[in-house]
Amino acid sequence: MNFLEERIAKDGIVKEGNVLKVDSFLNHQMDTELFNAMGEEWKKRFEGKNITKILTIEASGIGIACVATQKFQVPVVFANKSKSINIEGEVYTAEVESFTHKNKNQVIVSKKFLGEEDHVLLIDDFLANGCALQGLIQICNAAGATVEGIGIAIEKGFQKGGTTIRNLGYQLESLAIVESMNAETGEVFFREN
Amino acid sequence: MNFLEERIAKDGIVKEGNVLKVDSFLNHQMDTELFNAMGEEWKKRFEGKNITKILTIEASGIGIACVATQKFQVPVVFANKSKSINIEGEVYTAEVESFTHKNKNQVIVSKKFLGEEDHVLLIDDFLANGCALQGLIQICNAAGATVEGIGIAIEKGFQKGGTTIRNLGYQLESLAIVESMNAETGEVFFREN
Repeated sequence: MNFLEERIAKDGIVKEGNVLKVDSFLNHQMDTELFNAMGEEWKKRFEGKNITKILTIEASGIGIACVATQKFQVPVVFANKSKSINIEGEVYTAEVESFTHKNKNQVIVSKKFLGEEDHVLLIDDFLANGCALQGLIQICNAAGATVEGIGIAIEKGFQKGGTTIRNLGYQLESLAIVESMNAETGEVFFREN
Repeated sequence: MNFLEERIAKDGIVKEGNVLKVDSFLNHQMDTELFNAMGEEWKKRFEGKNITKILTIEASGIGIACVATQKFQVPVVFANKSKSINIEGEVYTAEVESFTHKNKNQVIVSKKFLGEEDHVLLIDDFLANGCALQGLIQICNAAGATVEGIGIAIEKGFQKGGTTIRNLGYQLESLAIVESMNAETGEVFFREN
C-alpha cells in the first residue's frame, strides 16, 4: 500500500451503499501534509509534461489543488458550481451531475483564466462516475486548452468514471483505486498498481 | 504598501458599487505563492498563540487556509455551505448571509472536528459585513472552542464587519484594509497600519 492507501485503511470509514468517508483528512478536515505528499507523487507521475495551469472544482478539490500546485509552481483555477457576481463577463460552462449531492450543477470558469495556450492538469479528490471530471474536460476543450493529465486522490474502481476517462486516452493518475469495500468489517480493498 | 496591497493595486479591478475584483489571483484563479506569503505574515502576527486548528469556509477560503496552514502545521477544517451526505452525524450549524451571493446559507461543521480543546484561527478571503465570520465564531462558541484570532486577506474597511469583530475583542489581522475605491480611476486606497 502507498501512503494514501495506508491512510484510507487507517482513517477511512466504510458505510453501507459503497460510501467511503474520508472527512477526517481529505474533504472536511484536511491534512495538508498529506496533500503535500500527493503533490510530490503527481509531480513524479507527470514528469516531463509541460503543465501551465491546474484546474479543479469547488469545494473539496481546492485544498488539494492549492497545496499540490506548489510542486508545479503554476496558477490554480477552480471551477465554480454556482454563478456569483465574482465571475462576470465571458465564461465557459458545463453541466455536471454530482454523485455525492444527487443534483446537477452548472460549472463555470472565466474565459480570462483558461485559453488555447494552456496545458492543464486536472485535480480532484474523488472520481466515481466521472461527471465532474467530464465537465472540466468539456470546459478545457471549449477553451482550446490541452489536458495534459488528471490527478485524482481516490478513485472508486467499481464505478465507471475511471474506465471511461482512460478509454478516452487521458493519463489518469489516481493515487488510490478502491476495488471494493466491506461495510461490515470496515475493510477497503485497493487495486494493485 | 505591503505585498498584498501592492498586488491588489496592480491586479485588482474596481467596479461600480464598491466591488473589488481579485479573481485573477485570489478567488477564482489562485496564486499560491502569494498565499504562502500570507501564511508567513499571519504566522508572525499570531506569534505566541497556541493554535490547534484552522477553520475556514467554502469555497474561496479553502485554498488560502490550506496553503497558510503549512506555516502552522495544524489541520484545516472548512465549513460547508450546504448539507451533503459527506457530513453526517452531529453537526454545528449557523445561518449566514452572503454579501457576494445575496443569499442565506446554512453553514455546517461536524462536531467530530471541533471541540472545547481547540484553539482556532479563522481564515477567510474577504471581510465585508462580517456575516460569514460571525457564523464561524458562532460555531466555535457552540463547540466550546477558543477563537485565538482571525486572519483575513482583504477587509473592506468602509463596511461594518471589521469594526464589529474588533469591538468584540478578537485579534483580527486583515492583510489589506481597503478604505475606499474609485471605479472611474481604478484606484484603491488602503488604511495605514
